[in-house]
Amino acid sequence: MVLRLRLYSALYPSWGPICLFPRSFASCSGNPASCCTMPQLGLLHGRAWAVLFGQLRRPPGAVCIRAVHSHSQVVEAALATQLKPHQEKSNFIIKTPKGTRDLSPEQMVVREKILDMVVSCFKRHGAKGLDTPAFELKEMLTEKYGEDSGLIYDLKDQGGELLSLRYDLTVPFARYLAMNKVKKMKRYHVGKVWRRESPTIAQGRYREFCQCDFDIAGQFDPMIPDAECLKIICEILSGLQLGDFLIKMSWKDVRHEMVAKKGLAAEVADRIWDYVQCHGGVSLVKQMFQDPRLSQNKQALEGLGDLKLLFEYLTLFGIAEKISFDLSLARGLDYYTGVIYEAVLLQTPAHAEEEPLNVGSVAAGGRYDGLVGMFDPKGHNVPCVGLSIGVERIFSIVEQRMKTFGEKIRTTETQVFVATPQKNFLQERLKLIAELWDAGIKAELMYKNNPKLLTQLHYCENTGIPLVVIIGEQELKEGVIKLRSVASREEVAITRENLVAEIQKRLSES
Amino acid sequence: MVLRLRLYSALYPSWGPICLFPRSFASCSGNPASCCTMPQLGLLHGRAWAVLFGQLRRPPGAVCIRAVHSHSQVVEAALATQLKPHQEKSNFIIKTPKGTRDLSPEQMVVREKILDMVVSCFKRHGAKGLDTPAFELKEMLTEKYGEDSGLIYDLKDQGGELLSLRYDLTVPFARYLAMNKVKKMKRYHVGKVWRRESPTIAQGRYREFCQCDFDIAGQFDPMIPDAECLKIICEILSGLQLGDFLIKMSWKDVRHEMVAKKGLAAEVADRIWDYVQCHGGVSLVKQMFQDPRLSQNKQALEGLGDLKLLFEYLTLFGIAEKISFDLSLARGLDYYTGVIYEAVLLQTPAHAEEEPLNVGSVAAGGRYDGLVGMFDPKGHNVPCVGLSIGVERIFSIVEQRMKTFGEKIRTTETQVFVATPQKNFLQERLKLIAELWDAGIKAELMYKNNPKLLTQLHYCENTGIPLVVIIGEQELKEGVIKLRSVASREEVAITRENLVAEIQKRLSES
Repeated sequence: MVLRLRLYSALYPSWGPICLFPRSFASCSGNPASCCTMPQLGLLHGRAWAVLFGQLRRPPGAVCIRAVHSHSQVVEAALATQLKPHQEKSNFIIKTPKGTRDLSPEQMVVREKILDMVVSCFKRHGAKGLDTPAFELKEMLTEKYGEDSGLIYDLKDQGGELLSLRYDLTVPFARYLAMNKVKKMKRYHVGKVWRRESPTIAQGRYREFCQCDFDIAGQFDPMIPDAECLKIICEILSGLQLGDFLIKMSWKDVRHEMVAKKGLAAEVADRIWDYVQCHGGVSLVKQMFQDPRLSQNKQALEGLGDLKLLFEYLTLFGIAEKISFDLSLARGLDYYTGVIYEAVLLQTPAHAEEEPLNVGSVAAGGRYDGLVGMFDPKGHNVPCVGLSIGVERIFSIVEQRMKTFGEKIRTTETQVFVATPQKNFLQERLKLIAELWDAGIKAELMYKNNPKLLTQLHYCENTGIPLVVIIGEQELKEGVIKLRSVASREEVAITRENLVAEIQKRLSES
Repeated sequence: MVLRLRLYSALYPSWGPICLFPRSFASCSGNPASCCTMPQLGLLHGRAWAVLFGQLRRPPGAVCIRAVHSHSQVVEAALATQLKPHQEKSNFIIKTPKGTRDLSPEQMVVREKILDMVVSCFKRHGAKGLDTPAFELKEMLTEKYGEDSGLIYDLKDQGGELLSLRYDLTVPFARYLAMNKVKKMKRYHVGKVWRRESPTIAQGRYREFCQCDFDIAGQFDPMIPDAECLKIICEILSGLQLGDFLIKMSWKDVRHEMVAKKGLAAEVADRIWDYVQCHGGVSLVKQMFQDPRLSQNKQALEGLGDLKLLFEYLTLFGIAEKISFDLSLARGLDYYTGVIYEAVLLQTPAHAEEEPLNVGSVAAGGRYDGLVGMFDPKGHNVPCVGLSIGVERIFSIVEQRMKTFGEKIRTTETQVFVATPQKNFLQERLKLIAELWDAGIKAELMYKNNPKLLTQLHYCENTGIPLVVIIGEQELKEGVIKLRSVASREEVAITRENLVAEIQKRLSES
């Protein structure tokens, strides 16, 4: 494809032949090595051209070129002034989009650790992995989120299908089940979702954030998968050692289940609420069954059946005391059909020097028996229950804690550094490091022909690399390598053929 | 927020009181348990209502309700007919967006294995992790991709910033470096990117795909980081055992480097090309230096300097014979400033029964010394060189191979199944499985009150679970658990307190 070049030479009519600098010119320290004159312009294929001082705003469709007078470098400065690149630049702020952020290597290490823990819990419970695209057909997401629908990111209509970024991982999961006629599945999904909310970054709330979901789809005997979901939340929050937590169940939805679905009288339901308030979650069911006004009421017994079952299972799982009811909690999303739950951290930080951080809920979930049917042409449903771990908030808490305690994080896993005390030893270092890489050892060296030994050793200390192998003339003559422990500064000479084995032995011991 | 309900009752004037079914009705087997009459409508807060037969198209802003005559269920069918849900439905195809796909649990297992291998190689070379948002400010991506810019997905203008989905991981990396004034960094990034290309799914080319990038940013002595990038490609492609491969370097760019940057005469450059054609990559440099027309030409020697250096390093890394030059290869993206390279698989499949698959290049990279400067307000540059592994194509090859050989993939990692031969043993199974989970053992059970033993054992055989623990009345009485090997069908009785230790012993042996 030949680009149509619209030249700005009209602006500078006195300049004679036009000289074009390819983009790489900016790194060529001012020498216009590659230039072409007007007749050559027609030959420029598929290349855009940049100016030395960054991007210039210009009419759409036009290609921006840097036009200078012949080979005279003086004109460059003149041109720069005329085009006022700094004024142009002042509008150009380098940033990530509102409510999003980069994750630095330090943050990535924290994130990887937390995600590993979460995923290993999901796998412990027999879940399979699944991935879905970042965007869905727009119509797949409509009518799923109620009043939150306005927060969905739509893609621009560039011809073809209308698309939206996924808002959660639940709706794509239901779409997957319906599309593939899957009637039974236990899956986990770790992925980013996007919501055009007002970002409150101090609380770890972003417009792009990571969700970790676990869901059980299928027709099963009541409350067994529901209890497992609550167990998983407890395992993860305990495992991450975030302090004490509580899982709150929405009383509104429990009441609705009993009254609307099981036909319990509203007064009886409210009598149960009295119990909930007095006794909390743990001994709730037992207490209620001892109240003759409830236990002698057939409707009440039926209405309480599922709740009783759930608390039986939670007791067997050893987590019943972690569950309580909450009157203010209500379903945030439209697709929930049963009881929803939310896990909240309870305590302020244990240590006085730690800043308390309001992080709100760190996990949530519930039952959504009608969602798959919304995708199925015949309305066939697959009952589902699931949970979502609010890992972003957990990241915030752990980061904050590490900051408070001044914990240092290693951002690489490098085990060995290849160093030399001498000049002109790059070739030997390269040969040696290739041997280490090929043996699976994590190794680095300096990209310099003649680095100083002290600089090399300091690098190891600063980045936490535990071992250094040192090669110099003496070692080369004797056929050995010096192996140095960075912590103890002890050095031993090792024959080249034993080096890899010795390194592996040291690494396995540490 | 109270939703404004616009009722379609005008369509059915003869129907008297209006009955509303909440979305969950679809899963309630047809009994209109929850219904409200007209005066109650005003009380409906923040809830959308769905019809039984799926989504109906309707004027934007209106809320769709299912209106039926009183409690008569007969009308449901009539309504269904009148609204012609099947005709409406025919426009509604459940699918993923064009050029995208879900990854099934089987595919996720393959993907996870390949990504683990790639990332562990990146970490072996001392790279740090980094993550950037899925979308960038639109202006960050402009002028970076030349004629490919039209393939960028833009987000809809919903107020606020103009955004685009990232097109690769390189431009966000350069933006990160400039934004944080990072002058030196070795990082890897695994993430999805999006391109509105014509998808050719048979070749593993999608509009949403995963990239695995490794890049070295910083001012270093020449060709050392470049050689390491080529070494990494070789390690990964060898490690994945994809068969023989070759890395092709773009001759056009090598020539350009010599002629335009080092001032070599064009005729001399073309004389070098004769060598390249005759001798290929490996002995190229040596041969060229023996030709007096080149070795006695000062310009030629200087022009060849970098190339000589690179091949020296590649020889030390033991990969020089993997590199050759290619006349047709040209930079696909605008930001490359030096030599680019591309790795291609060489052989057709080794086994006759395997379908040959055209997969094109499986890795690519090059130098882009000018990209960071495009983001920097003062144009300060950070030289960069990097590579990108085309994992989607590698997934296709590995999947195809597994299909051909009928390899079965385990999609879960479950180690133990908790079974019972008896009725009413759910409570004991739940107690037992919680013990296993709490000990970190991956365990499953059936979500049924009274499953058949044979069904439970079949499930283990089908899903590859190696161990079963069986609890029944006899075991409960004797205080033991039966531990069964699924493969050998051998069963032994173990005391409850020894169970976890015995399971861990068996798992560590296998």
